[in-house]
Amino acid sequence: MDLNSDLGEGFGIWKLGDDTALLGVITSANVACGFHAGDPSTMRKVCEEAAKNGVKIGAQVSYRDLAGFGRRFIDADPVELADEVLYQIGALDACARAAGTEVVYVKPHGALYNATVHHEKQAEAVVNGTKAFKDLPILGLPGSQLLEKASRAGLRPVQEAFADRGYTPEGTLVPRSRPDALLTGTAQIVERATRLLQGELVAVDGTVIKTQAESLCVHGDTPGAVAHARAVREALGTVTPFA
Amino acid sequence: MDLNSDLGEGFGIWKLGDDTALLGVITSANVACGFHAGDPSTMRKVCEEAAKNGVKIGAQVSYRDLAGFGRRFIDADPVELADEVLYQIGALDACARAAGTEVVYVKPHGALYNATVHHEKQAEAVVNGTKAFKDLPILGLPGSQLLEKASRAGLRPVQEAFADRGYTPEGTLVPRSRPDALLTGTAQIVERATRLLQGELVAVDGTVIKTQAESLCVHGDTPGAVAHARAVREALGTVTPFA
Amino acid sequence: MDLNSDLGEGFGIWKLGDDTALLGVITSANVACGFHAGDPSTMRKVCEEAAKNGVKIGAQVSYRDLAGFGRRFIDADPVELADEVLYQIGALDACARAAGTEVVYVKPHGALYNATVHHEKQAEAVVNGTKAFKDLPILGLPGSQLLEKASRAGLRPVQEAFADRGYTPEGTLVPRSRPDALLTGTAQIVERATRLLQGELVAVDGTVIKTQAESLCVHGDTPGAVAHARAVREALGTVTPFA
Amino acid sequence: MDLNSDLGEGFGIWKLGDDTALLGVITSANVACGFHAGDPSTMRKVCEEAAKNGVKIGAQVSYRDLAGFGRRFIDADPVELADEVLYQIGALDACARAAGTEVVYVKPHGALYNATVHHEKQAEAVVNGTKAFKDLPILGLPGSQLLEKASRAGLRPVQEAFADRGYTPEGTLVPRSRPDALLTGTAQIVERATRLLQGELVAVDGTVIKTQAESLCVHGDTPGAVAHARAVREALGTVTPFA
Repeated sequence: MDLNSDLGEGFGIWKLGDDTALLGVITSANVACGFHAGDPSTMRKVCEEAAKNGVKIGAQVSYRDLAGFGRRFIDADPVELADEVLYQIGALDACARAAGTEVVYVKPHGALYNATVHHEKQAEAVVNGTKAFKDLPILGLPGSQLLEKASRAGLRPVQEAFADRGYTPEGTLVPRSRPDALLTGTAQIVERATRLLQGELVAVDGTVIKTQAESLCVHGDTPGAVAHARAVREALGTVTPFA
Repeated sequence: MDLNSDLGEGFGIWKLGDDTALLGVITSANVACGFHAGDPSTMRKVCEEAAKNGVKIGAQVSYRDLAGFGRRFIDADPVELADEVLYQIGALDACARAAGTEVVYVKPHGALYNATVHHEKQAEAVVNGTKAFKDLPILGLPGSQLLEKASRAGLRPVQEAFADRGYTPEGTLVPRSRPDALLTGTAQIVERATRLLQGELVAVDGTVIKTQAESLCVHGDTPGAVAHARAVREALGTVTPFA
Repeated sequence: MDLNSDLGEGFGIWKLGDDTALLGVITSANVACGFHAGDPSTMRKVCEEAAKNGVKIGAQVSYRDLAGFGRRFIDADPVELADEVLYQIGALDACARAAGTEVVYVKPHGALYNATVHHEKQAEAVVNGTKAFKDLPILGLPGSQLLEKASRAGLRPVQEAFADRGYTPEGTLVPRSRPDALLTGTAQIVERATRLLQGELVAVDGTVIKTQAESLCVHGDTPGAVAHARAVREALGTVTPFA
Repeated sequence: MDLNSDLGEGFGIWKLGDDTALLGVITSANVACGFHAGDPSTMRKVCEEAAKNGVKIGAQVSYRDLAGFGRRFIDADPVELADEVLYQIGALDACARAAGTEVVYVKPHGALYNATVHHEKQAEAVVNGTKAFKDLPILGLPGSQLLEKASRAGLRPVQEAFADRGYTPEGTLVPRSRPDALLTGTAQIVERATRLLQGELVAVDGTVIKTQAESLCVHGDTPGAVAHARAVREALGTVTPFA
């Protein structure tokens, strides 16, 4: 099992999350590329620290939206979106190579992640932008158009699960508006991790869902989140980057 | 002799210069990388057209300043500036590779070009950012700190001359505030080109200056400029990219 | 009848449209406020020229999207959108007051204009942001949520018609994908203007639609468009700002 | 004595400083206007909270530089800079008025503050931009070109002192590169405040400098800084906004 998290999400003077703590826990870092967060110096430093920790680097590509942190759907033209994805991967890859490593996968951020679950044109755009760079694996939601389009285009689709999100019996995420959207107890989160090792997700009503997730996503925005990430890492035992 | 020009300097809906016309004239395109101008789609299209025309691609790196078109000195931290240079080259190289070509040199734009004539720290920053990407040639002003630092760092310094700028007897550019700052007649500009083939620049007072310029810079912002660029190209006879 | 047009839509070095020509033709200028186009100096100059020409100034508020020229729907949070509208009006009003005039109406730009035809929350956001500044008239599409919400909030809704767009028999605009989306002949456009004086719009199939439009929108992006705007002005005879 | 501090210096998801704590301590809030920090929603919220706390609002105008937090000198054209100042004041004033208050003074931020100590053209630009809005007081360093130009233009110059900076015997700030640049002990900072009430600043070598400072600047970026600000407030006894 791989353990991924979002990193490098500050901008200039502003910081977000505890990158250093997470780099000691995860195996794959989704690094912001400057469009929703991440300035060149932050990107380069994260890449250097990731390289030192043996953590793989993925391009966390996004809509161009610093003011909205990439969390707002933008009805971007698919051709332009593909070019923006290509630009972001290239910029991050330069930072990664300067640190002796490289970008080995792509994961869309925020609203682009959510949009590409259903939005075929934008899903294709992310795939096309990636392919224009290189045939990299794409990390995303099982059943999403993104992974479907990636697969058709000959890119390796990598399914991920979430350590701290509630699942419906159908295997989709419980909407954030519902009280059971988030797992908050360490025991629950550790249970999520250990069941995942058996190819299972337990939905909020107890239904057991079979899953082929190869990566588990953890967050690090809060001190509690880092502690949870560490508990997940311990529960998983051996972790291995998927890429 | 190489013939270079600035391309891809629009942004979104806004256009600047006649890229298509220039690509039929020049041998090296200094392509804007998104910091003073240039969005990903513009960058990619310019790279594609350059590739079709056999025109080499250079990264026209800049301060982050869309509002000022990179024409204002910014007292940027050298480490951050180097990282911004690296980011820009990487982003453009991704676009170039998607077009079957690659970035083969670097030329700073506007205020960064001017600053790095004398500003040692920023000159080093451009060199360091370039070197962090790859040992690419750097195109600049003869005698500039930029070329000096490039040379010391093991990068190939490439001197350029300007087709339409007046030179002082000392070989520096006549300040734009003076009436003889610009050559406006086609005959003068063609003379500049032909003398350059003999390793000579003629200053505004008639002094003949020896030069090792390998590249001649032409502009394409106006219809007249494109016509001048064509006259220069014809006067030069065979043109060859320096990189 | 009022004649309105979009102005000040350059940014920094980049220009768009012939503001000076249009200011001699129109009675109301929708001035870009820096979010999709328009830097402070452009804004101030347009306000000064508008004041000299006796042209009224409206705030052409937009999503924050320079790269997309405000032409892409952004799923902005309504509270944030209202605050962005307020910010833009305030910034433009400062420029207008420095020119001895003031902002007297609001018209959303591009994708925000289109979104607020149906999107109730965003329509309310534009109204709330406007009202937070002052009870200004809002210029928009007849039947739009925007004008509906404006009316309910006690703002004066002002209906506009388009000089060069085809109308369906139902009175909506013919989608741009159809060949009859645009009126291109001067005669057609002049006919549109003269019929409008009688409270009528003629649809593409000849159906006559009753309208209460108080303002006619013309464009000035091309030389042809300016000529059309002048023809419209002449056809209208007396023109009067609505605000 | 007035007590001023920088507020609203987050951007979108990113936060900086403890605005709420400071609003309970200070009498004048220098609110970021979106150019180095501050989005419209943050601006409006700070204005609302300031109004509730009876804290006066000043426009903390800056170079356009989110990536550098306005801390880098930009060689901006004075006319454009004046227009940017006008734009920022107008935008903030709209937010302030929506909160039932208004902008009553101007203080440049960061590199613009430092530049306008000596840079006459930029000092004039800030004054011109302010005057174009309204004849507002300008808060700045004693002896600065900024206050000199403000005075000549008929604006009220307001001198400020710093609660936690070391002063040279000549009354200038000790450069940040020196170990005595910052006062770190609460006792020192409280002493600064109490001496200021007597019109005196004590330099790092003990020299007593006469001062006419009407406002004392405190910071709130760290928990320690807020505690210091509270100690200063207590030491000052009665505090009164200067504007």
